[in-house]
Amino acid sequence: MSSEVFHIIDPRTFNRELLDELCEITDTSRALGKTPEGAAALRSLLADKRAMLYFTQASTRTFLSFNNACHLLGIGTSEIRDPAISSEVKGESFDDSMRTFSSYVDVIIMRTPERGLAGRAAALMDLIPRRVPIINAGSGPDQHPTQALLDIYTLERSFAGRGGIDGKTIAMMGDLRRGRTVRSLCYLMKNYHDIRLVFVSPPSLAMRNDIKKHLVQHNIVFSETAVLDDVLGSVDALYVTRMQSEWDEEEESLKVDLDDFSIGPNQLPKLNPDAVIMHPLPRGPEIDPVVDSDPRAMYWRQERNGMWMRAALLIKIFGVEEQLRNQR
Amino acid sequence: MSSEVFHIIDPRTFNRELLDELCEITDTSRALGKTPEGAAALRSLLADKRAMLYFTQASTRTFLSFNNACHLLGIGTSEIRDPAISSEVKGESFDDSMRTFSSYVDVIIMRTPERGLAGRAAALMDLIPRRVPIINAGSGPDQHPTQALLDIYTLERSFAGRGGIDGKTIAMMGDLRRGRTVRSLCYLMKNYHDIRLVFVSPPSLAMRNDIKKHLVQHNIVFSETAVLDDVLGSVDALYVTRMQSEWDEEEESLKVDLDDFSIGPNQLPKLNPDAVIMHPLPRGPEIDPVVDSDPRAMYWRQERNGMWMRAALLIKIFGVEEQLRNQR
Amino acid sequence: MSSEVFHIIDPRTFNRELLDELCEITDTSRALGKTPEGAAALRSLLADKRAMLYFTQASTRTFLSFNNACHLLGIGTSEIRDPAISSEVKGESFDDSMRTFSSYVDVIIMRTPERGLAGRAAALMDLIPRRVPIINAGSGPDQHPTQALLDIYTLERSFAGRGGIDGKTIAMMGDLRRGRTVRSLCYLMKNYHDIRLVFVSPPSLAMRNDIKKHLVQHNIVFSETAVLDDVLGSVDALYVTRMQSEWDEEEESLKVDLDDFSIGPNQLPKLNPDAVIMHPLPRGPEIDPVVDSDPRAMYWRQERNGMWMRAALLIKIFGVEEQLRNQR
Repeated sequence: MSSEVFHIIDPRTFNRELLDELCEITDTSRALGKTPEGAAALRSLLADKRAMLYFTQASTRTFLSFNNACHLLGIGTSEIRDPAISSEVKGESFDDSMRTFSSYVDVIIMRTPERGLAGRAAALMDLIPRRVPIINAGSGPDQHPTQALLDIYTLERSFAGRGGIDGKTIAMMGDLRRGRTVRSLCYLMKNYHDIRLVFVSPPSLAMRNDIKKHLVQHNIVFSETAVLDDVLGSVDALYVTRMQSEWDEEEESLKVDLDDFSIGPNQLPKLNPDAVIMHPLPRGPEIDPVVDSDPRAMYWRQERNGMWMRAALLIKIFGVEEQLRNQR
Repeated sequence: MSSEVFHIIDPRTFNRELLDELCEITDTSRALGKTPEGAAALRSLLADKRAMLYFTQASTRTFLSFNNACHLLGIGTSEIRDPAISSEVKGESFDDSMRTFSSYVDVIIMRTPERGLAGRAAALMDLIPRRVPIINAGSGPDQHPTQALLDIYTLERSFAGRGGIDGKTIAMMGDLRRGRTVRSLCYLMKNYHDIRLVFVSPPSLAMRNDIKKHLVQHNIVFSETAVLDDVLGSVDALYVTRMQSEWDEEEESLKVDLDDFSIGPNQLPKLNPDAVIMHPLPRGPEIDPVVDSDPRAMYWRQERNGMWMRAALLIKIFGVEEQLRNQR
Repeated sequence: MSSEVFHIIDPRTFNRELLDELCEITDTSRALGKTPEGAAALRSLLADKRAMLYFTQASTRTFLSFNNACHLLGIGTSEIRDPAISSEVKGESFDDSMRTFSSYVDVIIMRTPERGLAGRAAALMDLIPRRVPIINAGSGPDQHPTQALLDIYTLERSFAGRGGIDGKTIAMMGDLRRGRTVRSLCYLMKNYHDIRLVFVSPPSLAMRNDIKKHLVQHNIVFSETAVLDDVLGSVDALYVTRMQSEWDEEEESLKVDLDDFSIGPNQLPKLNPDAVIMHPLPRGPEIDPVVDSDPRAMYWRQERNGMWMRAALLIKIFGVEEQLRNQR
């Protein structure tokens, strides 16, 4: 069916065929996991594999969703979540640490506060005899490809009865300048037809020019506004993000009036009745907890989708998607 | 046989039928685990389940006994033992963190230094679509229900040839005011007949009035003393506890002459030859290591019982006790 | 075939028969693990066992190789890598902590910064009813027996076509005074015939007298030099080690001209074409990364051998080596 995938570093390399196949693998796995027999079949799919979770940046949900995706597939996991307990205190180089991980496991899933380390690890792997795939689970401020994949899956399934993502209007709101999830998601939009993007943010935290150039190059229509009310009635999806205050240099977050970039009881009545509300989580005050019980709130399902999409990605990387399909 | 159980928060909700059934499940599991084939059957019982161990309070044995109980039953585990590595650094609310855990796993086992959080998590679960059971593995100074369960199991088995717990005299010694294990155990005594409790403590660390009221309400006979020698000859069980010095406000622990509330070579000859000595561990100087080789010392077996009782509890929560019995 | 082994504390207790058998078990396991069916057979070998990894000294590779060796064999693992999260904050004794671990698991693998703790744990185990094996994964500055085993395996396989280790000349270079891997490896040399050892180090970091006495007692020829060039052409193996600067009391490491005790582009042409280059890793500047692509560089394979040799050791400890052989 599709081409091979190995390292997962940059969402710009994903094509429509791969995205569609990953969505199909996710559906198939979830369906299979609903019975004890199916779950047992899933657990035997990759039971001879072992994963390294190297997470030196604080993370709850990316870590837990990958760890549990591994459990779903029978993959044994080892973790380093605190760089201080690693041998790096003895002054080992990053490259040597990565090569060491590759000696013991079959895939390295990594999240670092520094930019570009996942790509560097992947380049190293391509030079050594026992090459293992690298999955970028977040590398500093630039990319978060698996978050983008689960967002795509959630959008596709939310629009399942309406032709999927093609032709939809998607608003992204919040700290677009520094949020890596919206950046990665924008890159994937080139794979869909007739998308309209609306960026809702304070001017100080607007989407960066590199993304806008990318959209222009791929003929993706986008607009920008600081007024949420103008778009609520017409969007198919409202992707809300939090203030990335950890990247503040001059208290940029504090200067924003968050009321203008939040959704709560005042906004819900104005929102398109068919729209879905998404958020990569964790959330701050930008989504009022009363929204949780609105049928359009999709962020908790989106979160759980993350585990299943990450399982699908592992299935695809190790090339056992046919074995999965034969289990149906 | 018995009613369903879901959240495990407060030992006051346990009835005799449940306690007896959990003891029976514990016995059955232990017997099954003695052969490789039986152990394999145990590991398949809950192999499609995943657990979250959320332990933000320091713990060795509660953590290890739950983790290994999960391994016994094939349950995959994820752990957060250091709150600093979680996403809470990004300011996520407790409720959102719990809901996130529930997205990925089938049961949340939690231990916190704060009072009441397990109950709050359980209440949250009852409001969301993907509800998972919460097990309180210690919530601040108030309750520690699974410790009480393993204590009950140890007492029942220690008195197996003598009619079980009914009719026995149980002394509890040490820091009764602040020890949550003795508090939880007292609550369970209402499920047994003709129990006599003896509280042995310095007056400053005596059992609190809320527990005494509870005992009076349920017609459970109790007495208090500061003189261990008066009770050694007549007790069926001596439940020793350590000074809870971590809760000291005015060096309460340091003011106690621990010699009066300890067991060692001087006390052993006076102790009822049929009595058992218990302790929730870790111990301080209140049990001399020479006691370890006395046949009445039951605390190491009690500790190991904790793993098996916690496995039994998981079996009961997920309703696979009949499948277990069919393995015999 | 061979005698039983239980605790693994001190490499001085290993005899040739055991070393040969462990190498054979390692080969058999590796061969079996190459197919999914063989890997599944391996994972069932010890699936009813549980291990405790108690690593209070920083370690990446020893931890990961043991953890993944356990995964290879189906052993469930629990870990304590930060002593601050353990119950020892409540003042539990080392002996009680070890006995607690033994309540829940079937083997304790431990690495500590303090000398002698693994031996103490083993002595404790021999006194209690539920005795479990202790594996020393590094105890302070004295011994590191499993590193010595993987070094032996790597040497044996490197010389497979040339009669194995017997008769070979092995140079050890670097901080020989404080490196525990070379110390442990020296102890094992008595099991082989006609070995010649060459110690290459600055005089200030020369091999200690206790090892030299041991070599004399067992009639093992050794010589010492500070000039690497004198030995490069004649050695069969060059075992390079790093400066153990963490043990510096008076900046001993900083006073060494590391150029004299390193291997890089200038040394490679002079090295015996049949020699192998080994290193316990992590490496510092004593091996230039350009050496990695030299066919004589064996240290990355040596590292991966560590996982398989540790799996072999677990197989031997639990006495399932015959079941392994029957899988072939």
